Amino acid sequence: MRITVLAGGVGAARFLRGLRAAARDAEITVIGNTGDDITLSGMRVCPDLDTVMYTLGGGVSEEQGWGRAAESFTVQQELAAYGAGTDWFALGDKDFATHIVRTRMLTAGSPLSAVTETLCRRWQPGVRLLPMSDDPVETHVLIEENGSRRSIHFQEWWVRLHAAVPALEITPTGAAAATPAPGVLDAISTADFVLFPPSNPVVSIGPILAVPGISEAVRAKTVVGISPIIGGAPVRGMADACLAAIGVQTSAAAVAAHYGSELLDGWLVDEQDKAAVDDPELADIAVRAVPLYMRDLPSTAEIARAALDLAAELRA
Amino acid sequence: MRITVLAGGVGAARFLRGLRAAARDAEITVIGNTGDDITLSGMRVCPDLDTVMYTLGGGVSEEQGWGRAAESFTVQQELAAYGAGTDWFALGDKDFATHIVRTRMLTAGSPLSAVTETLCRRWQPGVRLLPMSDDPVETHVLIEENGSRRSIHFQEWWVRLHAAVPALEITPTGAAAATPAPGVLDAISTADFVLFPPSNPVVSIGPILAVPGISEAVRAKTVVGISPIIGGAPVRGMADACLAAIGVQTSAAAVAAHYGSELLDGWLVDEQDKAAVDDPELADIAVRAVPLYMRDLPSTAEIARAALDLAAELRA
Repeated sequence: MRITVLAGGVGAARFLRGLRAAARDAEITVIGNTGDDITLSGMRVCPDLDTVMYTLGGGVSEEQGWGRAAESFTVQQELAAYGAGTDWFALGDKDFATHIVRTRMLTAGSPLSAVTETLCRRWQPGVRLLPMSDDPVETHVLIEENGSRRSIHFQEWWVRLHAAVPALEITPTGAAAATPAPGVLDAISTADFVLFPPSNPVVSIGPILAVPGISEAVRAKTVVGISPIIGGAPVRGMADACLAAIGVQTSAAAVAAHYGSELLDGWLVDEQDKAAVDDPELADIAVRAVPLYMRDLPSTAEIARAALDLAAELRA
Repeated sequence: MRITVLAGGVGAARFLRGLRAAARDAEITVIGNTGDDITLSGMRVCPDLDTVMYTLGGGVSEEQGWGRAAESFTVQQELAAYGAGTDWFALGDKDFATHIVRTRMLTAGSPLSAVTETLCRRWQPGVRLLPMSDDPVETHVLIEENGSRRSIHFQEWWVRLHAAVPALEITPTGAAAATPAPGVLDAISTADFVLFPPSNPVVSIGPILAVPGISEAVRAKTVVGISPIIGGAPVRGMADACLAAIGVQTSAAAVAAHYGSELLDGWLVDEQDKAAVDDPELADIAVRAVPLYMRDLPSTAEIARAALDLAAELRA
């Protein structure tokens, strides 16, 4: 069985751990969002790719869901002493090594896909992890401050401003001119089905689908998504602030309608959102209600199994 | 009073601490050796500049004489886990921040002299620290292994091989094509006198003098040197292995003769080398014997005072 997953950060990484347990013999390819990528202190940081890699490789901070376990922050403190640090984005010492290896390889001319492969040789995530593109894509957020509008990097909006300032527009800058990374289109076209984990539809799955060629390839497949919204609220993060920017309600049904039946064949919602099963707006999408909180590995594997079952039914 | 000092690493840095104490009102310019510079894990490392900066800025590991006090090595251990580290060269986490700032600025196009000025803004070393050149110069060592000769970076010979393999040749690669960094020639020509601290004559002072224009400028000045050799042995490091490569004996007198009277006007030797005072080979150099062990700040300041006194006499 070949499964291809479009992935954001923490939610996707946790789901993937369950999927890996639920489908031990499957070949899983993960197409990671790189719209969150940012250059800080001269280091190229790929938060979503690293979260997937650290989580599946057993190095993640379980409490945070991102970054490395048992981190120290000496390098960042020293950079601050030089006036060269970034006080609003935590970069631990262990994490820095990843960014040093990545930045060095990128500077020497390696594409991000080759860098990611090298990093994964250490972490052995048990899936093939591909960046959506080797071309730089950065999600930018248009905000209004003191009456004037300016565009800032997604990370600045998300991490520094805690998404508290309304986003007027969210744009995956560079996506329209980007090319899918080597292996991405092939991983989609040869997959038995494609899964959307409970990732942010606007800033995680959205930028991946914005790379020309990817949404077309996905549309041709059986696609099952898992709602990142439960009971009208994001399970994690501030997806509501992102959905507001594109005029989509914060509900499991609205997110499915946003993707649309052209893209989505099946959609898992939590039991408390079971009204979506009979939502006439989702008539062309097979909606199923199951417990969706990823409390631990067994409950997450159950969700993955439900997604696989639905996909198998839809494909038959 | 304006004093310009050509400097290597640990010996020079300790001497400079004494000089700063002995000449509180002097404007001291330090021209640092960059022949030891090396790129490790994609980071540009300038060991001699950093040793001077950390020592005068109060951040050095006093036990080692180089590197930062109370260091940790998380980044290096993590790089090793990626197969991207250098196991023979210790790079601490605090130290890494310096290399990150430097590499980032160099990559962005800043010359090393501007980088050094930026780094010194934090450390406030109380001297003006200039790299000898903004052009890359790397000291290479020709060795013979298993019957075949190969050239390796000085650091590999010094740190990894502990200078145990004989050096057949020591070459400051790139020096002949290098230009003195901005301010270097001016700092020499406007100095009241020039000092050579007890640095390695072959791999510390040698590469500085190999940059076209510097030795000519130094020759025109009153120059006093402090012997790095006491009683036939280097006080620190493996200068004997370097001197052997250029056919110079490991003695205070032989090092003075190597510099020669064209360059050197005065030479301080330790009391146990007082025979050098009447050495006919050093007839054109004013040799003075004083206690030369830099045991602590007061004893080091005494040595600096002796050098300043000799320079003042010679200049008069």
